[in-house]
Amino acid sequence: MNDPTFEIAAPANWPDIWEVFRTVVASGTTYMFPPDMRQPDARAAWMPAHAARHRTFVARLDGAIVATAILRPNQPGLGDHVANAAWMVHPDAAGRGVGRRFAEYVIEAAQDAGYQAMQFNAVVDTNVRAIRLWESLGFATIGTVPAAFRHAELGPVSVRIMHRSLAVD
Amino acid sequence: MNDPTFEIAAPANWPDIWEVFRTVVASGTTYMFPPDMRQPDARAAWMPAHAARHRTFVARLDGAIVATAILRPNQPGLGDHVANAAWMVHPDAAGRGVGRRFAEYVIEAAQDAGYQAMQFNAVVDTNVRAIRLWESLGFATIGTVPAAFRHAELGPVSVRIMHRSLAVD
Repeated sequence: MNDPTFEIAAPANWPDIWEVFRTVVASGTTYMFPPDMRQPDARAAWMPAHAARHRTFVARLDGAIVATAILRPNQPGLGDHVANAAWMVHPDAAGRGVGRRFAEYVIEAAQDAGYQAMQFNAVVDTNVRAIRLWESLGFATIGTVPAAFRHAELGPVSVRIMHRSLAVD
Repeated sequence: MNDPTFEIAAPANWPDIWEVFRTVVASGTTYMFPPDMRQPDARAAWMPAHAARHRTFVARLDGAIVATAILRPNQPGLGDHVANAAWMVHPDAAGRGVGRRFAEYVIEAAQDAGYQAMQFNAVVDTNVRAIRLWESLGFATIGTVPAAFRHAELGPVSVRIMHRSLAVD
């Protein structure tokens, strides 16, 4: 098996991205997006046609798209030096190291784009694998919002706000 | 002088709202929006034509619009039970009790709409008057993001994430 490869998404990739998005969101356990989100709304959120600094990425294993990510400013204007990013890995590709390497790739893309920090606004507190990954990549939990996520299986759970500097030494 | 009055904004109010928005944002001291934000972008952000649960309000003193606010879900889907809100008071109307009463009005509107909590994502740490107001209304700082705001006069300053329950006893 070859290593995963990463690239900026092209509009023609949307059907493959949608398959990842749909599958991940449907579980209702890690993302705020409605589990039954409609395809055009998903596309507008994840791969908008007109959003100046919004970038969408894909990861491939053996040529097939198995994961997708976005990178964008977390706030407009006077806050647009802090990035926000999000990743989705198709469950069939879990455990193959795609997530970590894809995370490193997008973080480096954020540094290259001049962002000074990265912030996640809603890491579901029960998503232990994600939290461990972010902590291992230098993110710290800077706040916790009680009961902010209606987990499909567990009911109301907290979400973490996580942050790290992107300063290049 | 009469008490301020509050109402849901009508499209015809936009020119008056824009005057408040433009003036507040131009200072570059309290809002992320670019100080030179263009009018159509401001309208799309503050008073969007198609955003299901986004509400825009105005406050009047002696009939004239002196302040505006928005109320919306802070997150989509499984997080849409937490509200986000923001207020702008024209500096000429400052110190006349509009801000506090307008805050109470919108918080009550959020409760009436069924929101279970309210979250602010970016309260500028040097905006002491706002922070005191939010604390007096039951909000707590649940996190601080270092250097997340490029203050027009002070350079990089922190922003607070503030939160309160809207549970009705």
